[in-house]
Amino acid sequence: MSTSGRLIGVGVGPGDPELLTLKAVRILQTSDVVAYFAKAGNAGYALAAARPHLRACVVDLPLLYPVTTEISRRDPRYTSLIQDFFDTAAAHVARRLDEGKTVAVLSAGDPLFYGSYMHLHVRLAGRYPTEVIPGVSGMSGCWSAAGRPIAQGDDVLTVLPATLPEDDLLRRTEQVEAAVFMKLGRHLGKVRRVLARLGRLDDALYIERGTMADGKIMRLSVKSDDAAPYFAMVLLPGWQR
Amino acid sequence: MSTSGRLIGVGVGPGDPELLTLKAVRILQTSDVVAYFAKAGNAGYALAAARPHLRACVVDLPLLYPVTTEISRRDPRYTSLIQDFFDTAAAHVARRLDEGKTVAVLSAGDPLFYGSYMHLHVRLAGRYPTEVIPGVSGMSGCWSAAGRPIAQGDDVLTVLPATLPEDDLLRRTEQVEAAVFMKLGRHLGKVRRVLARLGRLDDALYIERGTMADGKIMRLSVKSDDAAPYFAMVLLPGWQR
Repeated sequence: MSTSGRLIGVGVGPGDPELLTLKAVRILQTSDVVAYFAKAGNAGYALAAARPHLRACVVDLPLLYPVTTEISRRDPRYTSLIQDFFDTAAAHVARRLDEGKTVAVLSAGDPLFYGSYMHLHVRLAGRYPTEVIPGVSGMSGCWSAAGRPIAQGDDVLTVLPATLPEDDLLRRTEQVEAAVFMKLGRHLGKVRRVLARLGRLDDALYIERGTMADGKIMRLSVKSDDAAPYFAMVLLPGWQR
Repeated sequence: MSTSGRLIGVGVGPGDPELLTLKAVRILQTSDVVAYFAKAGNAGYALAAARPHLRACVVDLPLLYPVTTEISRRDPRYTSLIQDFFDTAAAHVARRLDEGKTVAVLSAGDPLFYGSYMHLHVRLAGRYPTEVIPGVSGMSGCWSAAGRPIAQGDDVLTVLPATLPEDDLLRRTEQVEAAVFMKLGRHLGKVRRVLARLGRLDDALYIERGTMADGKIMRLSVKSDDAAPYFAMVLLPGWQR
């Protein structure tokens, strides 16, 4: 009887290859296949963070998104395309698992916190031995690089995808103490308007590539344009001494 | 002229010593002094996670809380005692920094996310070269151990200290999708009542020592009592496939 392989979701942290955990490194060094979500022509942050820790003989399994931001996520075509894509990606991974291979699926940050890995997890974890290795989240990387305590004591922390419609974002932000706005990309202007309406613009920090040598950290109020990469964040620290 | 030392807040992750980052381990292996907050007679999780990575010659600097849960945090005596304690702790650390030592301050989870380290950070970061090494948060450790995706797409994630008064907790939980209730301890009964009133009790998971061999993961609705350690959590996963 053949033995099936193991599926392992591996959090590789916020970008700096030194922010992988010892466990993530051990798993990468004993995996047969390394799978990762990426855009065609751009292998992405997760692979860059993991690359120094991979074995020369590991088999690469890139899972290339058919679309990312070209179609609105509220368009029914997007849902259909992306669900088919995750089904196909899961089938590719399953084939390696059926061969008895250990497949490490890389996740930027932490796998079960807004990570694409979870689309494979829900399709495969019931069928194969599965483990998830938590990683340092991108938001932890950002507030640590900025040296700004985010929440303390009885503070409530709210994590908001900036992709939400502006009204929702405003309503969900009205009573927040500490907040993190993720997935900025082309949504930075919207986040700026919401914070201005709430009178909180001067408290907000803009952070891009926080744990990298070329990272940028500045007050949002002094950032002169609304250009931002998808993984940039805005932090609204809750705690004042 | 003497050179002052460096202050480093080191996130040591959720408990498993293999969940430290490579960077945290490197810092611990080159630090002169390791400081950590603890209760008298109980060195705590952070030191246990870091211990396998410390040098034999490192100088221990325990910072012992004068009170933890013996006095209510809303009692003015608590505020006074605890502020004096943090001032004194900062002075102890500053003395080592003035001697030119590198002082690593251990934090369970992630230092600037509800960690005691930030009380030293705000007192010392302006006076000494300071760095913060992010860590895997306790909540990431918990949802990874449970294998439960916590948030995806446009989900908003709300992190709530269970120490909040019941009315506040109810109000802040009314519209949540995904939520994490931290700092449970004697507050588990309150969290259970809030979730029951919102009709969300059956969705909630109770997790205790999530990344440890003796960890417990169960549906909150089947947990038969309200006993919980301080670091236990309740998760309300937001994402349904």
